Amino acid sequence: MSVANNYSIILQNRVLVDVNLNPMSQKRYIELEQPSLLNNQADVDRLLGTLENRYSGLSVPLLLMNKVSEVLRNANWRVTATVARSGHAWQLVDIEPGDTTNRHLGLAVDLGTTTVVGYLVDMVTGKVLDMAADFNGQAAYGADILTRIYLAGTTSGRKQLQQAVVDTLNGIIGRLAQKQDFYGGAISAVTVGANSTMVHLLLGVDPSRICMAPYIPVVNLPGYISASAIGLAVNPRAPIYCLPSVGSYVGGDIVAGILASGLHKKPELALFVDIGTNGEIVLGNNEWLVACAGAAGPALEGGVARDGMRAEPGAVYQVRIDPDTRQVHYRTIDGRKAVGICGSGLVDCLAELMLAGVIDRAGKFRGADKSFVVVPAADSATGKDITFTQTDINNIMRTKGAVNAALEVLLEGVGSRMNDISTFYAAGAFGQYLDLESAITIGFYPDLPRERMIRLGNSSGEGAKLVLLSEESRLEAEEIARNITYFELNANEAFMNKFVGSKFLPHTNLDYYPTVKEKMIKRGLLHD
Amino acid sequence: MSVANNYSIILQNRVLVDVNLNPMSQKRYIELEQPSLLNNQADVDRLLGTLENRYSGLSVPLLLMNKVSEVLRNANWRVTATVARSGHAWQLVDIEPGDTTNRHLGLAVDLGTTTVVGYLVDMVTGKVLDMAADFNGQAAYGADILTRIYLAGTTSGRKQLQQAVVDTLNGIIGRLAQKQDFYGGAISAVTVGANSTMVHLLLGVDPSRICMAPYIPVVNLPGYISASAIGLAVNPRAPIYCLPSVGSYVGGDIVAGILASGLHKKPELALFVDIGTNGEIVLGNNEWLVACAGAAGPALEGGVARDGMRAEPGAVYQVRIDPDTRQVHYRTIDGRKAVGICGSGLVDCLAELMLAGVIDRAGKFRGADKSFVVVPAADSATGKDITFTQTDINNIMRTKGAVNAALEVLLEGVGSRMNDISTFYAAGAFGQYLDLESAITIGFYPDLPRERMIRLGNSSGEGAKLVLLSEESRLEAEEIARNITYFELNANEAFMNKFVGSKFLPHTNLDYYPTVKEKMIKRGLLHD
Repeated sequence: MSVANNYSIILQNRVLVDVNLNPMSQKRYIELEQPSLLNNQADVDRLLGTLENRYSGLSVPLLLMNKVSEVLRNANWRVTATVARSGHAWQLVDIEPGDTTNRHLGLAVDLGTTTVVGYLVDMVTGKVLDMAADFNGQAAYGADILTRIYLAGTTSGRKQLQQAVVDTLNGIIGRLAQKQDFYGGAISAVTVGANSTMVHLLLGVDPSRICMAPYIPVVNLPGYISASAIGLAVNPRAPIYCLPSVGSYVGGDIVAGILASGLHKKPELALFVDIGTNGEIVLGNNEWLVACAGAAGPALEGGVARDGMRAEPGAVYQVRIDPDTRQVHYRTIDGRKAVGICGSGLVDCLAELMLAGVIDRAGKFRGADKSFVVVPAADSATGKDITFTQTDINNIMRTKGAVNAALEVLLEGVGSRMNDISTFYAAGAFGQYLDLESAITIGFYPDLPRERMIRLGNSSGEGAKLVLLSEESRLEAEEIARNITYFELNANEAFMNKFVGSKFLPHTNLDYYPTVKEKMIKRGLLHD
Repeated sequence: MSVANNYSIILQNRVLVDVNLNPMSQKRYIELEQPSLLNNQADVDRLLGTLENRYSGLSVPLLLMNKVSEVLRNANWRVTATVARSGHAWQLVDIEPGDTTNRHLGLAVDLGTTTVVGYLVDMVTGKVLDMAADFNGQAAYGADILTRIYLAGTTSGRKQLQQAVVDTLNGIIGRLAQKQDFYGGAISAVTVGANSTMVHLLLGVDPSRICMAPYIPVVNLPGYISASAIGLAVNPRAPIYCLPSVGSYVGGDIVAGILASGLHKKPELALFVDIGTNGEIVLGNNEWLVACAGAAGPALEGGVARDGMRAEPGAVYQVRIDPDTRQVHYRTIDGRKAVGICGSGLVDCLAELMLAGVIDRAGKFRGADKSFVVVPAADSATGKDITFTQTDINNIMRTKGAVNAALEVLLEGVGSRMNDISTFYAAGAFGQYLDLESAITIGFYPDLPRERMIRLGNSSGEGAKLVLLSEESRLEAEEIARNITYFELNANEAFMNKFVGSKFLPHTNLDYYPTVKEKMIKRGLLHD
């Protein structure tokens, strides 16, 4: 059997990551000598004796000892041992009769506040066999993260929230098992990319102090947790490894993203941005990494804008405005009649209205109208105008301003300038669907040569896959978490000043945005 | 505070063992820097950061993470961490406010088929604070070990037997806790000296194959088992370490005994004998160790002899017979009226009858009487004669013959002779109470200069204490178990031949027993 021995992430024809396969759990077929009066080693010790020079510190958990004896005998001493990392050593996870090494499964999870995605990974080839997604069941107890943190302040609340997300994961595992015809117990290792709060809630650890100064989580690096400890429907002895967090607001999801981008291994200065409910920004290279974070996203998640909505069927996700006629061209998800505008649509609106001269660089409507009809009542599913308002603009401007200000604090902190940034990585689902040109036009993203702007997609899930498949990547993830210097913005005066001063589109200093400047000049919006 | 830093075993003015204190669990008082916006490490990581260069691979179990946060804060960041060995690394076992390093408890257990003894050990000084003993609650399911092994063939039977011995241990812990005013959870490490079957039953592991050729246990070296896994009423995260077995019939109790004797570190050839329900013999020095075992003891446990009984009040434990008058002098336990004869009394009877010329060297009554009244009916508590019979003699002769034959098989196997043995160690409770001269007279023990014959007492418990207090001793125990070469006697032809040929008192070859020979000559029983 020919077996792949490496795993790569290739995006836009660039190899971001290429690692050797060295997964968190491993399978090995062995043929043991049968015991006799002259060879009377105990069963467990016999098994360990064969495996322990390859897997240092290997131990057999108490609950597997009887099974070891039974399987060894029933299988005539030809068995497949599944071992997984545990602490600084290895642990036996399962023993099966015969040679089952060609069927070896792991699960990588992107555990988001809203959405949970599970990737079923073939640990032999590194390929994703299947995936399944679902909304995080914790939403029933609170859509936003603060409500959940509050609820988790009591033991019973923590239990409820833990059970909710474990149920979601078990549902995902069940669907994958049914589709791919295996039983959950065949999964022998699980990795999780999630923010700090989601990790705390998954593990049943109190997240209360995440949102209280000085914002100290209980744990950033939980290490290997046994699946049985949280009731996950995989092999009960499978390790669950949550990617390490940097702190309360830069979680394992961000570390996963950095890992998947490979920016921490390249000498050039790179910027990594993940805008979701929270926004996280990381700046750095192979020598240093700095990060900051803040509540960024509500304005872009549809919950705040007057006609905003989630990226669901009927959402306007793309908007183009003819600069001459001001006629609107839009697209909706699934092509249904428009219900509202989702995040990428809102960003398009702002960019297109600015380039059409409807609003000025400060984000103010130039004319008397203080709102703009994107979809007229006649065409909408609601029978009402779908409108983009001055308030919506102000909200997005605040978010954008915060991103600009945060980036500038980071740049100043390390003595670099905007122009030094050579590669830009957009992480997360929002980064995947946002129109790149619009994001640049409003100054959300930097104005770099487009081939140096990379959308990572679900980089939290990608990072979780890497750590599942490669010990080297896992060690890198821990190094990234250790090495990132976190800039706390909550009480940062420079940030507040820059935030107040960064309320122009795309940026106070237009020279940072040459392509946007050019477009504006072309359209007669600037007189240089 | 002045603290002991070593632990010694001294018997008969000889230092058998002297080791540095380096216990299985350790306590450390630490003062942590308080977190702030500029020092925002997570609580668990902060604690680990302070401890992990001293305790390599230290991890915090999931169930302790919330407690870490709470205690750190309530105790103003001044806490005592209790850590214990786990696999090849360390694990946090507990965290307490303030400095509690002067109160640090461990439990060493001698877990016998019949009796269980718990020693409460002060891990700071190495001193035994208290001890408590009880009968093994498994006896309710079967006094003899074979009945228990049979019952443990089913999952429910295993559960019953496990619960029975755990209940016994928890009762002992409860009594110690009450007497010494602590709560069970304060015990942070437990070590157990027990035979293979007792270890299997304690851990809930199937012992069925221990008594079926080729006599393969499930496990000889179970490693560290979490107390919570078996429901022991100590700190749930305390490691339980069972001393490793060599095989089905040379268990951790014997390894503990060797360890406590120190014979494995001395160049001179030593013989170690432990006669209980089973008999185990180990021969060796600092270069090699050989062992064999067999069902030895029923004849000596009182269950088999006509008027035999356990060593309980009213048992005749010492017998002297005037060679001239044949008058009997005896002592009973607690000085009560005689009820029966216990093991040491039976051995005395045999030796004294031989030296009084009542029986010959083949163990046959010389006269017409085929039995001997030890306590006449008038003096006994039962109102009947307490008698020592030819059948009783034959049973003891068989046991003695087996011990002789086994020793000879070992000696031949390693190319040594009886005269090469320079030190003799008698292990176990039976070895503690048996009259040395009588044991030599009947050839049960070798005839060495008396100062080179050492009674180890409860060496299983002593070995458990050593391993609890000293990592060096624990590693030695594993080395002893690995290095002992086991001679299987069950299908050994040489053994059967020697067994049949070793039916004389004290030995077929009287030259091996110079002091006995001398006594016999003095009494006119030999004509050389």
